[in-house]
Amino acid sequence: MHKRFYLKAFGAMALLVGGLIAIGAACGGDDDGGNGNGGSGNADLDAIAAERGLTPEDMKHALQQFVPPGTYDDYVMFASGGHSGQVFAIGMPSMRILKAIAAFTPEPWQGYGYGSDLGNTVLAEGNPAIPEGTDLTWGDTHHPAISETSGEYDGRWLYINDRANGRLAMVDLTDWRTKQIVPVPNAQTSHGGMFVTPDSEYVHISSKFPMVWPAGSYADLTEYKDKYRGVSAWMKIDPNDGKINLAESFEIELPPYSQDLADSGKLISDGWGFIGSWNTEMATGGVGPDGAPNPLEAGASQNNFDFLHVINWKKAAEVAKTKGVETNGVPLISLEDAIAEGLIYLIPEPKSPHGADVDPTGRYIVVGGKLDPHVTVYDFTKIQDAIANKDYEGEDPFGIPILTFDSVMSGQVEVGAGPLHTQFDSQGHGYTSLFLANGIAKFTLGEDVVKNGEQPYTLIETVTTNYNIGHLATAEGDTVSPDDNYMVALNKWSIDRFAPQGPLHPQNEQLIDLKGGLGPMELIADMPMGIGEPHYAQIIKADKLNPIELYEPGTDPLTMEKSPYAIVGGEERIERNGNVVEVWMSATRSHYSPDIIRVKQGDTVKLHITNIEQTRDATHGFAVGMYNIQASLDAGETANFEFVADKSGAWNFYCTEFCSALHLEMAGWLLVEP
Amino acid sequence: MHKRFYLKAFGAMALLVGGLIAIGAACGGDDDGGNGNGGSGNADLDAIAAERGLTPEDMKHALQQFVPPGTYDDYVMFASGGHSGQVFAIGMPSMRILKAIAAFTPEPWQGYGYGSDLGNTVLAEGNPAIPEGTDLTWGDTHHPAISETSGEYDGRWLYINDRANGRLAMVDLTDWRTKQIVPVPNAQTSHGGMFVTPDSEYVHISSKFPMVWPAGSYADLTEYKDKYRGVSAWMKIDPNDGKINLAESFEIELPPYSQDLADSGKLISDGWGFIGSWNTEMATGGVGPDGAPNPLEAGASQNNFDFLHVINWKKAAEVAKTKGVETNGVPLISLEDAIAEGLIYLIPEPKSPHGADVDPTGRYIVVGGKLDPHVTVYDFTKIQDAIANKDYEGEDPFGIPILTFDSVMSGQVEVGAGPLHTQFDSQGHGYTSLFLANGIAKFTLGEDVVKNGEQPYTLIETVTTNYNIGHLATAEGDTVSPDDNYMVALNKWSIDRFAPQGPLHPQNEQLIDLKGGLGPMELIADMPMGIGEPHYAQIIKADKLNPIELYEPGTDPLTMEKSPYAIVGGEERIERNGNVVEVWMSATRSHYSPDIIRVKQGDTVKLHITNIEQTRDATHGFAVGMYNIQASLDAGETANFEFVADKSGAWNFYCTEFCSALHLEMAGWLLVEP
Repeated sequence: MHKRFYLKAFGAMALLVGGLIAIGAACGGDDDGGNGNGGSGNADLDAIAAERGLTPEDMKHALQQFVPPGTYDDYVMFASGGHSGQVFAIGMPSMRILKAIAAFTPEPWQGYGYGSDLGNTVLAEGNPAIPEGTDLTWGDTHHPAISETSGEYDGRWLYINDRANGRLAMVDLTDWRTKQIVPVPNAQTSHGGMFVTPDSEYVHISSKFPMVWPAGSYADLTEYKDKYRGVSAWMKIDPNDGKINLAESFEIELPPYSQDLADSGKLISDGWGFIGSWNTEMATGGVGPDGAPNPLEAGASQNNFDFLHVINWKKAAEVAKTKGVETNGVPLISLEDAIAEGLIYLIPEPKSPHGADVDPTGRYIVVGGKLDPHVTVYDFTKIQDAIANKDYEGEDPFGIPILTFDSVMSGQVEVGAGPLHTQFDSQGHGYTSLFLANGIAKFTLGEDVVKNGEQPYTLIETVTTNYNIGHLATAEGDTVSPDDNYMVALNKWSIDRFAPQGPLHPQNEQLIDLKGGLGPMELIADMPMGIGEPHYAQIIKADKLNPIELYEPGTDPLTMEKSPYAIVGGEERIERNGNVVEVWMSATRSHYSPDIIRVKQGDTVKLHITNIEQTRDATHGFAVGMYNIQASLDAGETANFEFVADKSGAWNFYCTEFCSALHLEMAGWLLVEP
Repeated sequence: MHKRFYLKAFGAMALLVGGLIAIGAACGGDDDGGNGNGGSGNADLDAIAAERGLTPEDMKHALQQFVPPGTYDDYVMFASGGHSGQVFAIGMPSMRILKAIAAFTPEPWQGYGYGSDLGNTVLAEGNPAIPEGTDLTWGDTHHPAISETSGEYDGRWLYINDRANGRLAMVDLTDWRTKQIVPVPNAQTSHGGMFVTPDSEYVHISSKFPMVWPAGSYADLTEYKDKYRGVSAWMKIDPNDGKINLAESFEIELPPYSQDLADSGKLISDGWGFIGSWNTEMATGGVGPDGAPNPLEAGASQNNFDFLHVINWKKAAEVAKTKGVETNGVPLISLEDAIAEGLIYLIPEPKSPHGADVDPTGRYIVVGGKLDPHVTVYDFTKIQDAIANKDYEGEDPFGIPILTFDSVMSGQVEVGAGPLHTQFDSQGHGYTSLFLANGIAKFTLGEDVVKNGEQPYTLIETVTTNYNIGHLATAEGDTVSPDDNYMVALNKWSIDRFAPQGPLHPQNEQLIDLKGGLGPMELIADMPMGIGEPHYAQIIKADKLNPIELYEPGTDPLTMEKSPYAIVGGEERIERNGNVVEVWMSATRSHYSPDIIRVKQGDTVKLHITNIEQTRDATHGFAVGMYNIQASLDAGETANFEFVADKSGAWNFYCTEFCSALHLEMAGWLLVEP
C-alpha cells in the first residue's frame, strides 16, 4: 500500500527532469517541447506522466479523449448491443456509456417489461403471430438506423433490428425509450438490411436466412430452392410519431440467398436500395454425398461471385399498390412481378461479401468480399446505363437479370485480408475494416470525388486495430456529409487488451482520429464493451439530439399524451368494484400516497401511479417484493399496472431510485389477506 | 461539418502561443511550465488543449485518468447495479465498464437464463419456497462484498444482495459468473447488511423491512410490533467453492425496526458485527388519528435516537448449535435467547442513521445520522467495557439492553448536512458522504490513529460532488489496509452533468484522488452510469484477481468439473429414444456439428453443446429463432439445454458471437416436422 509514495518520489524527480527538458527544448526553440525525449515541458504534467508511466504519445491521446467533469461529449454513438438485445448510447470522444436503452430484452433499471404498461405492451406487441404462442424475451440487435431528413441524421427516431427473430424496434429519441417492436411479416430472421431512406419515408429490413413460405407451413431443406424465400421489407414510417405503419409498408419476395448488409441510395441514387448477399449457392449444411460433414461455411463459399441486389424502391412503392398481395398484414410483391416491373436487378460481387455501402455522393457502392483482398466499387450511373441498355450477362436461377460486371464496376482496390464494411469521409475516401488483417484500410474512390491531388482507387494507408474488427463507424458516416474527424473500430475480440475477466471477453471499441480526412489515422483509445456486442453503430452530433428533460404532468410515455389515469396531488384514491381494486397513487419525494393497499387474496389490482414531480432527474421507482414488479417512473410520468394478488402476506413496496435523503423511507405495504 | 477546420486553425495559433509560453516560462525557470496562464509548455499538447478547450487543470486530470490502449487499469471496482439486478466491474482510474455480470436478472449477452443450464439453474434455485409459486426475474443489488482473508480482499468470490426480495448471489471470480442465488429464510427484504467476516467464515445479510413471522402467515400492520420481525442472517461460506451452506448458517431474530447498513468487526473487534437501524418508532405509514396522511418518512423520523445493533457473532455461532431452532432450513436464535446469551446489544445513534462503518483498525465505528450534521464515532474498547460493566441506560421494548451513549461514544464531528456513509484511509481519516450538502467531508478519528500532527475528531476539508452523493468507496476501503489513493463518489443524480438523454438520467460516479490520504481531495473525472444504479461498490487491486482465461475441455461452469455430456471432435451424435431427441453437438470456428436437427413437433430436445476450442476469447453463441434460446459458450465450456419442440417449422440456429470471418456461415437448422 506504500507503492503510491515511492511513485510520488519518482514523480518529484521527473518533475525536476521535466523542468530541465523544458528549458533545454524550449530555449532551443524546439517547439515539440522535448516531446521526443519524454517530457512535456510542463512539470505538473511530467510528474503525473512519470508516476503513471505515460509516454508523450499517451499524453496527447489522453488530451484528445478527455471530457472534463460537467462538460459534454461532442457526439453520441448509438451502438447496437448485439445479443444483449439493447441499444447503447456512447459519448464521444470520451467513449463513456451514457445510457443503455432497453429494446428487445426486459430491463428492470428502466422498468422495461417488469409490470408497467410501456414495456409490457411494447414487448407483447413484438411477439410474432406466426408461429402461435411465441413469447420472445430477447433479441439480437445488429444495425441501428437514425432517422434522416434530406440525407442527414435528424435525431428524431432510432430503428434497430433483431437478427434472431426478424423484428425491428423503434426508439423515440424524444425520451430515449422504445415505443414499438414490429415483427416483420414473412421473415424469420434479419441482419444488416436496416437503413432509413434519405427522408425517412421507409426503414428497410431484409431477411438473413430464408424461411418456408407461406409463413407457418413446413418444408424440408430438400425443398430449399422451391419453398424457402427471403424478403426485402420496406416499413413505412409515420412522419408524425416515427412508428411503423404496416398497411402502408410493402415487401418484395427474394430468392433463398442470405441477404446481408444493405444501404440506401442517396442524392443521385435516391429511390434505390442495395443489398449484399452470400450463399447464392443455396447450401444448407448437413452432410455431402459421401456422408462426410459439408458445413455451410464450405457450401456457401464455392461460387466466385454472389449477388448485389439492386432495388428500385420508389417504383416498387407504386407497384405495391396494384400488384401487392396482402400477406400476413403487408402488401407483398412477387419476385415474378418485381422482375417484370424492373424493380430488382443483380450485380456480381466478389465471393462472400459483407458490406454494400453507398458513398456520401450516392454515386459509388462499395462491396468488400470477405474472401477477396479487394474492395469492388460500382458506379450508380453505370448501373443506370446497364439497366437502360439491358446490358445483362445472364439471369439467376429465379430469372432476375444480372447486370454485366465489367459494365457497372468502376474500380477495385487491394486493401488487405478480410474486407468487411466500408465507411466514408467527405474527402473522397473509403475506410474498410479488415477482419483478418486486423486493421482499417483507407483508399480513394472515383475521380470526381477524390481531392488533394490523390489518385482514384488507390490505397492510402492502413491502421492496425486490435483485434478482429467487424464493422466500423465514422461520425455522421451514413449521411450525405460525414464529419471527417472520428472513427470507431468495433472489434470483436479483445484477447489481452484488458485485465483478465474470465473466459468471456469484452469487445473492444477503438477510437480513431481521422484528422479531417487528411490523415494519418491515429488510434487514440481502447474502450472495453463487456455488456453486449455492438455490431454496428451510427454516430450523430450531440447537438442534433433534443430530448425532453421532463414529461408534461401525467404523461403516458406510450402515447406521449396525457394519461386518462393521471392525477394531481389530492386526487389519490382507492376504489373497489367486486374483486377489482383500483388505485390512483401519487409518487413524490419521499412517499407514495396512498402507501397502504389492503386487498383480499385473488383480487385483481389495477394500479395507476403518477410521479407528480416536475423536477429534472426526480425519477422514482416502484417495486413490489415477491410480485416481480419493478417500474421506473420519471418526473411527470403516469404508469399503469395490473396483476392478481395471488400471494397472501404483507408485502413491502418501495422506491428503487435513490430519490432523496429520506429515500429509504419511501415505502409502503401491499396487504394481501388470505 | 467544417467546425473541425476552424478549430485546427485555432489550434495552430495556440501551438505558436504555446511555444512562446514554453520559452518564456521554461527559460525563466518557472517549472510550472506556464501552467498558470494556460499553456503546458508543450506545443503538441497545447494545440490539442486549445482545440478542445481544455484548461491546465483539465490537462492534469486527463493524464491522471487515461489508461493507454492495451494497458491495464490498476483497480477493479465491483459496483452493485441497483435495480438492474446485476454487478458491474469498472476499471480504475479509467472508469471504463469492463463487464456486466448477470446476477438476479436474465441477460442474453452472457446467455444467462435463456435456455442453457447455468443461468436457468441458478435463477430457479433463487426463487424462495415461501410464498409458493414465486418466480423472480430481477433483483435490486445494493451491497457487494468481496471475500476476505485476514481482513484483506482475496479476490476469490463476490457476494451481492437483492434488496427487493431478501436474497443474495455468489459470483465466482474464477470465471466471473454467478454460481448461486440463495433466498434468505425468514426475510422478505434486505439492504446494507451485506459484509463478509475477515476470514470469510460468513457473509452477513440482514432484513430491511420486517416480515410477518412465521413465514407464510398473515398479520395486519396493526400487529406490527408483535407479529413482524427482522433477522440477522449469518450465511456460512464453503471455504472450497464459496457457496452458501444453509444448514451451517444461522440467524438471529431482530425487532421490527428497519435494519440498515452494517459492517464487520476486524482485528480487535473481530467476531462482532454492527448494524445501523432506523424506524425504531415502528411506524407503518397510512393515516394518523386525524385521518390525514402520516407517511413513513414522518413517522420514522420522530425519535432523536435509533439503535446501532451490536452482535457477537462468534459466540452466536456456538449458541446456534444448542439453541438454534431449525426454521425454514436454517437454525434461528430467538431474540429472547440472544439477549439471555449476551449476543446482542443496542447503542443509541443519532436519528435516522444510515452508515455504521468500522475503521481499518477495528476500534472505531462511525455512524452518520441523515438528519444530524454530525458523525458519531464509537469506540469498541468502550463498548466492551460497557458490556462487561452492564453499563446500560435502559432496554428497548423487546428487552435488548441499551449501552449508555456517553460511555461508548468516543467523539463527534460536525461534517455537514446529510452524512450518509463513511470510508477510511490508513492515515486516521474518515471520509463521509454528505447527501444534502453534495460533498464529502474528511475528518480525523481517535488520537491513537491520527497522524501528521492532526487533532482527533476534527473536520479537515470537504470536496464538492455533483449531485446527491449516496455511498462512496475507497480503494481497498473495507479492508484492514486501505490504499489511500482513489475514492469514488456514487452520486444518485446527474441533472446537467451529461448531454440530455431524456427524463431518465444516468447516475454519476466521480473519481477523486486522495493523494495518499495527505489531501487535498481532488476531483478528476465524471463517469455517467446509465445502465443501473450502483448503490455501493468495493474496489480491489486488479492484480489480486486471477480469473481463468479458458475452461478445461468440456467443463460445466456450474460445477467447474468435467461435464458428463462433454464431447471431443468426432463424438458428435444424435440419438432418439421415443419422443426424446438427444444431441451431442460441438461448436468451433465456423460451424456446429451436427448442423441439422430433425425432430417431430412435440418431441423433447436435449441438447449438449461443447465449445471444443481452447483459444482465448473463442466464445461461440447459440441462438434458436422463435424458441427464445440464447447461450454464450466460452472456449472449453459444455452447456445443456432441454426444450419441447412445440413450434413446427424450419428454424435457423446460429452463432451470436462474431467468432470468425465466416461467422455468418456458422448456422444450422432445427427442422420441426408437424
